[in-house]
Amino acid sequence: MSAVPVVLKVGGGASLAHDAVAADVAWWWKGGNRLVMVHGGAEFLNDISTKLGAPPEFLTSESGHTSRRTDRRTLEIFEMVYCGSMNKGWVERFQLLGVNAVGLSGLDGRIWEGPRKDAIRVVKDGRRLVIRDDYTGRVEKVNASLLLALIESGLLPVLTPPAASTEGEAINVDGDRAAAFTAAALGAHTLVILSNVPGLLARFPDEGSLIPRIRASEIAGFMSVAEGRMKKKVLGAEEALSMGVARVIFADGRVEQPLQRALAGHGTVIGD
Amino acid sequence: MSAVPVVLKVGGGASLAHDAVAADVAWWWKGGNRLVMVHGGAEFLNDISTKLGAPPEFLTSESGHTSRRTDRRTLEIFEMVYCGSMNKGWVERFQLLGVNAVGLSGLDGRIWEGPRKDAIRVVKDGRRLVIRDDYTGRVEKVNASLLLALIESGLLPVLTPPAASTEGEAINVDGDRAAAFTAAALGAHTLVILSNVPGLLARFPDEGSLIPRIRASEIAGFMSVAEGRMKKKVLGAEEALSMGVARVIFADGRVEQPLQRALAGHGTVIGD
Repeated sequence: MSAVPVVLKVGGGASLAHDAVAADVAWWWKGGNRLVMVHGGAEFLNDISTKLGAPPEFLTSESGHTSRRTDRRTLEIFEMVYCGSMNKGWVERFQLLGVNAVGLSGLDGRIWEGPRKDAIRVVKDGRRLVIRDDYTGRVEKVNASLLLALIESGLLPVLTPPAASTEGEAINVDGDRAAAFTAAALGAHTLVILSNVPGLLARFPDEGSLIPRIRASEIAGFMSVAEGRMKKKVLGAEEALSMGVARVIFADGRVEQPLQRALAGHGTVIGD
Repeated sequence: MSAVPVVLKVGGGASLAHDAVAADVAWWWKGGNRLVMVHGGAEFLNDISTKLGAPPEFLTSESGHTSRRTDRRTLEIFEMVYCGSMNKGWVERFQLLGVNAVGLSGLDGRIWEGPRKDAIRVVKDGRRLVIRDDYTGRVEKVNASLLLALIESGLLPVLTPPAASTEGEAINVDGDRAAAFTAAALGAHTLVILSNVPGLLARFPDEGSLIPRIRASEIAGFMSVAEGRMKKKVLGAEEALSMGVARVIFADGRVEQPLQRALAGHGTVIGD
């Protein structure tokens, strides 16, 4: 068992049982088990950015992936929601439960670092476009020693995008894939990804069609089953497994004791 | 000389030379000098909270002090602006300058902890009122060991309100007074407070009436000279000196090399 056996990624949807997640993480932590938490905030970001007059815009890449258009103004609202509202909301929940949490973005201490994309090729209304002023990229490096030092001091790290570009700019990165890199860098055994579905569904949105078990060697074949946001989660799972994480669990974040249930195998368990 | 000789408090006003402050701090840091930075964000908060339909409201205490009305909704917008926008903005500036900064609120790791006020007695339209749902308080305890551990790892801490109440709630605290407690807890020799005036003015807003030097024993007598926000700064200075900080410097944050100029004695130098 590594020093940090579990990395937990929690989505940002309003239907997520935030208090149940916090209570379950606090229970795990107080039992002497360590973890690092990663969270999102997409749904609340859409709400606030609309209120501030910069409604969300999504880009579709040539390969069919969808991502948020992140110009400088969006990035600044992104930071307000993810690092201000969501992150401090999680930290406060933990403090109220007696767990000394520390909320950090990937920019802080360069916890998450990677290249900013210099151009994004997208398809819009059937036309191909190249966008150059987007602040997005991907995580390639994790400051594991800072995370381990915090944990050794008894502090629970609560992480959120943005990450730092190689040059030091704030960049929007995918939270699921950042969590996968974090799990690998910490030598975690398990990556748990909680969202507003019970796991990977064979026939989305039919929750009765949950796929309970996928072998690591077969995960790539399930990309075609994943809908929307789930595509990035499957990609993150594939990356985590290829970097040595033993298992990835997609589980329901809308229920009581969501972490315990996930660790007990409720959801989609991916690994050998 | 202590491990952290200087604590720097920077206001949140739009007229502040943010890039000049960051460049000067980076110069100081790269010269091997350590510091902890504390920042505000009041002006931008007024702007964003108005846009989000919760315009700022200020309370006047029976003793004549002014403070921001911080109900739960204001607190949440406060966190967005201070912890999201302002804090990550400072961290990004430092990362771009090659300084590995870590942005934290006082809630994180309980860096700043103190009691939440259970009731605020105010005077409104000549009537006395008691407000009980306000999220304000004051810092009484600083997690100096976390700050020192970060600094020893080569990381520049960048701190901002809110603080943690004893129970773990997020509470709005005065940034100048929080900086004073931080300086004392770190055994800092000097607390520098940069704002949009050259220092304490005998006849505000006449910048020609700068008071260059005040003895520690005489600071209390200058409270009557301080206008508006400057009152809290004088109070913070008094507290810092009483807790062992050797000198407090109020200086201009609108100029080039503001930290170097302050440390060279430009501004109001308070101490023996």
